[in-house]
Amino acid sequence: MARPSRWPQIVDAAAELFREKGFVATSLEDIASAVGMYKGSLYHYIDSKEDLLFAVVREPAEQILGEVRELTDLDLPPAEKIRRIIRAHVRTLQENFTYSSVYLEEFAGRHRSEEWTAMDREYYRFVVDVIGEGKLRGDFGAAVDVRITALALVGALNWLTHWYQPDGSLSGAEIAERFCDVFLIGLLNRSGETARRLAATVDSTDRLT
Amino acid sequence: MARPSRWPQIVDAAAELFREKGFVATSLEDIASAVGMYKGSLYHYIDSKEDLLFAVVREPAEQILGEVRELTDLDLPPAEKIRRIIRAHVRTLQENFTYSSVYLEEFAGRHRSEEWTAMDREYYRFVVDVIGEGKLRGDFGAAVDVRITALALVGALNWLTHWYQPDGSLSGAEIAERFCDVFLIGLLNRSGETARRLAATVDSTDRLT
Repeated sequence: MARPSRWPQIVDAAAELFREKGFVATSLEDIASAVGMYKGSLYHYIDSKEDLLFAVVREPAEQILGEVRELTDLDLPPAEKIRRIIRAHVRTLQENFTYSSVYLEEFAGRHRSEEWTAMDREYYRFVVDVIGEGKLRGDFGAAVDVRITALALVGALNWLTHWYQPDGSLSGAEIAERFCDVFLIGLLNRSGETARRLAATVDSTDRLT
Repeated sequence: MARPSRWPQIVDAAAELFREKGFVATSLEDIASAVGMYKGSLYHYIDSKEDLLFAVVREPAEQILGEVRELTDLDLPPAEKIRRIIRAHVRTLQENFTYSSVYLEEFAGRHRSEEWTAMDREYYRFVVDVIGEGKLRGDFGAAVDVRITALALVGALNWLTHWYQPDGSLSGAEIAERFCDVFLIGLLNRSGETARRLAATVDSTDRLT
């Protein structure tokens, strides 16, 4: 479909409205009026409101998957790959805050269509593979549950859209580093003596020296 | 408002529909037809669709806050409190799957009203306090970022509704234990030798023996 010059402005307005009101509650009238057009004129650009939703979310989704695919072939320790996944995720959110929020709100974990479910699954599979590789190499604990850890990590990252503030006190890069620490290092003190003391208070003593 | 005997059935039907279609897309007609009533008869029970939403989510929200409040006064190590928060959260989800899903979809991180925002905040503050106490005691690493770790934990728990399956291969209790491991122990192997080797490959060497 031919998309004349006002297309980027329309997608921007749709993204803002989807994020504020949600996809279902936003009407084509809302979007048309936000860019000063008649609703009928929108049909020069789209067939349905869904077309606009896909236009909004395609960019952040492809950006993050692209970065993750590049990582696949790099010869890096699994811990470093986890760091880079987290950094890529937070950076994508930071650079496309409105668009990413709409993606996470309307797509992630929702099975909207085969294509989008496949994107979610590819991302999750990649995290699973990296964690599995880390276990195999002995870099990650032998008792790590690969699937649940991947779901916890992806969930914590996806939930970022509920609290991340583009003008908050921490930059995206700072948030990413702290996320890395949470998932790689964990809460329990790693210094030898405390770890031994704590070993008595937690179930998983085999994983503490 | 007097609420005769069909009230529980109406709240159940509303919960199912809100979870499947979302609150905005569900109409009072949908709910009335699910319980075989006329829409007009629903107004014997409620003033608006919002009343039904609040009825659906109040129980799981109060259950989890109640459990967390009980923890406040217990003399337990912070690591054990973190375990109990995670267990309470997963158990609430498991016992009230449909209702909890609606709460997390429509309320958590959304500022729907002062009362509900205050509930979110109380839960988050409690997690922050426990992590802060753990740092003070030296049970948790000195470099742990209290706020970001709390947000990561609450986010991972809230995201559970997107993947938890009541009939999945892991029980709620098993998922909870694995979540505890992720956040307390972290991915990196804690055995002395591997930890030393890895210390060279990650930034936060001060936290690894």
